[in-house]
Amino acid sequence: MSKGVALIIGAGDAIGSAIARKFAASGLTVCAARRNPEKLEPLMEELRVKSHPAHAYQLDARKEEQVIDLYRRIEEEVGELEVVVFNIGANVPMGILETDSRKFFKIWEMACFAGFLCGREAARYMSARKRGTILFTGATASVRGNAGFAAFASAKHGLRALAQSMARELGPQNIHVAHVVIDAAVDTAWINENFPDAAALKEKDGIVDPNDLADNYVMLHQQPANSWTFELDVRPWMERW
Amino acid sequence: MSKGVALIIGAGDAIGSAIARKFAASGLTVCAARRNPEKLEPLMEELRVKSHPAHAYQLDARKEEQVIDLYRRIEEEVGELEVVVFNIGANVPMGILETDSRKFFKIWEMACFAGFLCGREAARYMSARKRGTILFTGATASVRGNAGFAAFASAKHGLRALAQSMARELGPQNIHVAHVVIDAAVDTAWINENFPDAAALKEKDGIVDPNDLADNYVMLHQQPANSWTFELDVRPWMERW
Amino acid sequence: MSKGVALIIGAGDAIGSAIARKFAASGLTVCAARRNPEKLEPLMEELRVKSHPAHAYQLDARKEEQVIDLYRRIEEEVGELEVVVFNIGANVPMGILETDSRKFFKIWEMACFAGFLCGREAARYMSARKRGTILFTGATASVRGNAGFAAFASAKHGLRALAQSMARELGPQNIHVAHVVIDAAVDTAWINENFPDAAALKEKDGIVDPNDLADNYVMLHQQPANSWTFELDVRPWMERW
Amino acid sequence: MSKGVALIIGAGDAIGSAIARKFAASGLTVCAARRNPEKLEPLMEELRVKSHPAHAYQLDARKEEQVIDLYRRIEEEVGELEVVVFNIGANVPMGILETDSRKFFKIWEMACFAGFLCGREAARYMSARKRGTILFTGATASVRGNAGFAAFASAKHGLRALAQSMARELGPQNIHVAHVVIDAAVDTAWINENFPDAAALKEKDGIVDPNDLADNYVMLHQQPANSWTFELDVRPWMERW
Repeated sequence: MSKGVALIIGAGDAIGSAIARKFAASGLTVCAARRNPEKLEPLMEELRVKSHPAHAYQLDARKEEQVIDLYRRIEEEVGELEVVVFNIGANVPMGILETDSRKFFKIWEMACFAGFLCGREAARYMSARKRGTILFTGATASVRGNAGFAAFASAKHGLRALAQSMARELGPQNIHVAHVVIDAAVDTAWINENFPDAAALKEKDGIVDPNDLADNYVMLHQQPANSWTFELDVRPWMERW
Repeated sequence: MSKGVALIIGAGDAIGSAIARKFAASGLTVCAARRNPEKLEPLMEELRVKSHPAHAYQLDARKEEQVIDLYRRIEEEVGELEVVVFNIGANVPMGILETDSRKFFKIWEMACFAGFLCGREAARYMSARKRGTILFTGATASVRGNAGFAAFASAKHGLRALAQSMARELGPQNIHVAHVVIDAAVDTAWINENFPDAAALKEKDGIVDPNDLADNYVMLHQQPANSWTFELDVRPWMERW
Repeated sequence: MSKGVALIIGAGDAIGSAIARKFAASGLTVCAARRNPEKLEPLMEELRVKSHPAHAYQLDARKEEQVIDLYRRIEEEVGELEVVVFNIGANVPMGILETDSRKFFKIWEMACFAGFLCGREAARYMSARKRGTILFTGATASVRGNAGFAAFASAKHGLRALAQSMARELGPQNIHVAHVVIDAAVDTAWINENFPDAAALKEKDGIVDPNDLADNYVMLHQQPANSWTFELDVRPWMERW
Repeated sequence: MSKGVALIIGAGDAIGSAIARKFAASGLTVCAARRNPEKLEPLMEELRVKSHPAHAYQLDARKEEQVIDLYRRIEEEVGELEVVVFNIGANVPMGILETDSRKFFKIWEMACFAGFLCGREAARYMSARKRGTILFTGATASVRGNAGFAAFASAKHGLRALAQSMARELGPQNIHVAHVVIDAAVDTAWINENFPDAAALKEKDGIVDPNDLADNYVMLHQQPANSWTFELDVRPWMERW
């Protein structure tokens, strides 16, 4: 008997998939959404092998109709949305003069506007039931601007303010909104390819392991209503901050 | 002999006009830009009477080409941009479920994206000269999300992160970027019409006077390079915060 | 076989005892310290009944020699300190003019200086072993000053800065330092006596339950070294913040 | 005709003296207090030459009776305290294990407790008159803890929380409390002796000039009651932050 649906938006190979895995293990039905749904196949296969109910969806989270449609389909065909995780948004550092308006817009559209669409639609279903959890993935750039990060920090600060505003508005409706600030490199394919010492770092726990990070998302969802956390930061022991 | 140009973008009747007036008094040539340039006539007239050089421009600051064109015209026809003030962005509080995607986008486009366009173009001219000041107007929502403020806080946090990122990147190029957090009601036509006790408050200094606020913008521009402020807050003595 | 010692300093009837209980349940040997050790008897009895090893100690945590002695005794007689929780510090709101120097000092001595003594001694044992967790209990006053809170906010900010400085210094030695910001009323005897509606609030999860709060302390200790949290906040769903 | 008294506590050769000079130039009678009052002679001489009224006092600001006595003497013999600046507190970085309790206490006593005594006594006179300005000097360590800074950051965070609490309590009594965060090296004898490249940095405005910094203190005092700043940061253009 499922405890309801955990929808992971931006279910990438590393963090998003790990979050999906952990929610599946906790008894929720996983719905994973991604721009390219074929890439979700390994995750789906893995969950099926463990007999965890799981569904893969194509989603461009910047498109309002697609978000609305997806939520309706899941509610009608799979079950009630108990958890929605918004986990999209990547950075390519660039100087302010190199930041053309298209890039500034696209980074915001992906990291902030899509988060608004996904968060608001979650709030729609959850506020009707007075129950649910909405989780946003943040980064160092969510709390501090920096040289080369004008576009990304702007978008991530925007997402954090959205999360905080929603937490204050929706808390009294028994909807738990929280924000996880990842202040470090995470063990992803990209990191492994681009940082020659990633493997060495990983061996000594110097890079965030997506599975350990993901535990925090499940923990946030399981916090009882008298003890909710809005924000926590995550980094490896050896990280300089 | 002018000390160069102060461009005020979002030169509204209250704050923007007061900033223009103060920069004019400090010896800079004022260029004031606004969506509806006819509304700039009283300001222009006032500055002309005092023999302060001043120019009014039509600008939709969300349009990249318009921003680029305006800066080029000013540089060619008026003088070198020494100060650019971005002063656009208003809020209409609304619940998250009432925040449709068009509103979310429009608030961001106005309060954050336009700030990016205006800030980046300023950086382009100033970084070539290794000199200049870029000032952004912030609000309480720039530093704290709140119920009913999801869209506005998201946009204003985004603007602040842009400002902070630009400050860190452009400081070493001798460009001073700063952010003023107005944490209170300001004496505007809107406040006077919508808050019946505004007049009473004004009498006892309970509302920010745009002219006094504007002094801070000129002060920031005049700070010597060894002592720059990135951020200051402004509120009346009796404000609860 | 014990997983080592969890020392709870300021093991009051509500939060401190709950933290002790949870660490005992997780397999650590509890050492609980309090100014008046007789008050620890109910906790000791409860843990003994469950066959959890537990020890009660008298401690005035503001006295350096007492802190040093206690740590040495525990290390010699009980086991290795794996977790130290500093949970002391209460507030009596008072205006700045009513804050005499003795009160200001005493509040700091209790909430901040004792935290320094207990944290530093923990660091001494743990840095020799390159292993351990040090947890500090914070409050809203740790992150925001307020009217009537000059002394308390000053002490709690001081404790938070100590925790943050220690986290940055000791992280690379594999010692996890974290800070829990309790932003709400907690279900204590004091709250129940002084707030007539505490019982009603409790029924609807409007007051933090010490047992649920305490889970966060154990969670922090159990975080793997690649994913450490420095700070998290805790409040009930209905809390205005 | 004097505009009242500006009392500078911690009137060191660099920042404190510069603040005194600027307040003198603005028309206030300067009272400068320092542990070793002979060191104030050059400042006194300089002010006298310019016909600025000025008084030097011996003060150990950690001693409550001395603070109370000094304020009473000034009020009786010189004039009404319009501005009090608390400018004490230096750091010697040290690891947490090297931080003995005496050092931790002394750093707090100097940087925080003395600030409380001086701020509270200022509030006593000013709240009776519903008028006055209280200014505190902060540092990077006021807003961020760091390795090697446990004691200093703890004390400076404590001072900032005191300032913020006082600002919120005393603002509605028309007393302006503000906090200046100096986020950089300042041109002092100590810097010049200990940093070989200080002179070179100074030439290109890479070190805060005490005189330029001091302008901010006078500016804060002169802000009209409708537009008060609680906090501003100061750093050179080329500073990395």
